[in-house]
Amino acid sequence: MPRYKLTIEYDGRAFHGWQIQDGYVTVQEAIQQAFSKLTKETVDIIGAGRTDAGVHALGQVAHVDLSRGYTPQEITGALNYYLKDKGVVILKAEEVDETFHARFSATARQYVYKIINRQMPLTLDVGRAWHIRYPLNVEAMKEAASYLLGHHDFSTFRSLQCQATLVERTVKLLTVDQHDDWILIHIQSKAFLRNQVRIIVGTLKLVGEEKWSPLQVKEALEARDRTKAGPTAPPEGLYFAKVCY
Amino acid sequence: MPRYKLTIEYDGRAFHGWQIQDGYVTVQEAIQQAFSKLTKETVDIIGAGRTDAGVHALGQVAHVDLSRGYTPQEITGALNYYLKDKGVVILKAEEVDETFHARFSATARQYVYKIINRQMPLTLDVGRAWHIRYPLNVEAMKEAASYLLGHHDFSTFRSLQCQATLVERTVKLLTVDQHDDWILIHIQSKAFLRNQVRIIVGTLKLVGEEKWSPLQVKEALEARDRTKAGPTAPPEGLYFAKVCY
Repeated sequence: MPRYKLTIEYDGRAFHGWQIQDGYVTVQEAIQQAFSKLTKETVDIIGAGRTDAGVHALGQVAHVDLSRGYTPQEITGALNYYLKDKGVVILKAEEVDETFHARFSATARQYVYKIINRQMPLTLDVGRAWHIRYPLNVEAMKEAASYLLGHHDFSTFRSLQCQATLVERTVKLLTVDQHDDWILIHIQSKAFLRNQVRIIVGTLKLVGEEKWSPLQVKEALEARDRTKAGPTAPPEGLYFAKVCY
Repeated sequence: MPRYKLTIEYDGRAFHGWQIQDGYVTVQEAIQQAFSKLTKETVDIIGAGRTDAGVHALGQVAHVDLSRGYTPQEITGALNYYLKDKGVVILKAEEVDETFHARFSATARQYVYKIINRQMPLTLDVGRAWHIRYPLNVEAMKEAASYLLGHHDFSTFRSLQCQATLVERTVKLLTVDQHDDWILIHIQSKAFLRNQVRIIVGTLKLVGEEKWSPLQVKEALEARDRTKAGPTAPPEGLYFAKVCY
């Protein structure tokens, strides 16, 4: 069976997250239904990561096995036709060999979290960024972020529902940059714990507000206790940016 | 009567343009209604420019005369409360003297036109940019733009419905820049003819597609004839960026 790698963009507002759930519109189900219209068969797609409701993707990756071969143009053409105006698009389809696995072959996952830091409400960017009204101290956020870089036990920064048995992760990249009203937080790791990025961002926000010192983030990390971190940042600012293989 | 200058952002998708029209939801009417809730009086606001249906604003400016004084915080607080979730926000209110006029005092108006140049359909940016599927030659567009810079008779680049009696304008800035899939066209002039920016962009697109040479844009300009220009670019890519006084 030929296997295809798909690179996928979606608007998180249109979906109740990536993973199929009864009674909800999900990205995985929308793409599987589009494939079924093309192939007249039931297909399963496997994503590199499960995004929560409201989280966007610029470069989610999935793979799919089909019973016969199609050209990449046939796949993107048909799928984007069936997915028209649904808020999800296949940016690229590539035939890959059977050793490729969207989830297990990934060597790194990268997210970007977008904050708009201004007093006045949003118009054009509603649902596309976290709106924070009070000015954040970006230099303090950068210092705090530096303590989370590298290999650590991230128990403090995972959802209480996270079921991973291994809680150590290596954050390879964690930057905080300001451009006018926008604050962009880029973060990369081979894999993340559940809600890890959003809890990191929610904690960095406390530092930006100067409710916490940067060193308190280091202490929270060392405590290995979810209750020592800040709140989970809302989904609308989070973008699954890319997956490396 | 105290006069206030307002700086306004809006999502063009939420409105049938700036100017009040019977039976349509317009930005001007939405703001006037919000003022009436604050002041319990009928107020008229005057904008620096009239944007068409679907055109966005990052920094539209208007002025309003009120029968008594309010602090800028009272105005932004009350208006943004009444305008909540309507797709328009008052970014700033400032008391100005009676010689200030949003339209006549303006020394320059600046727009940015956003193109997304990629084969695949849009998700997150639907309605926020002009989607052009085939790769554009940006260098050729830059050369073509250079012929439109400066003081010219812009009869070629105005709507047939344009009623201006003076057709000469001075384009002070006209740049074409590419960032990944995005092409941004910045343009500044003291004032514009009706649809001037969108017709310029629609013509530059023909050059980008290599259907026209850059020099044909110069010839079109010199023809002073609307039928010699390209089509009017769609409204969703246009942003009224700022007004200088």
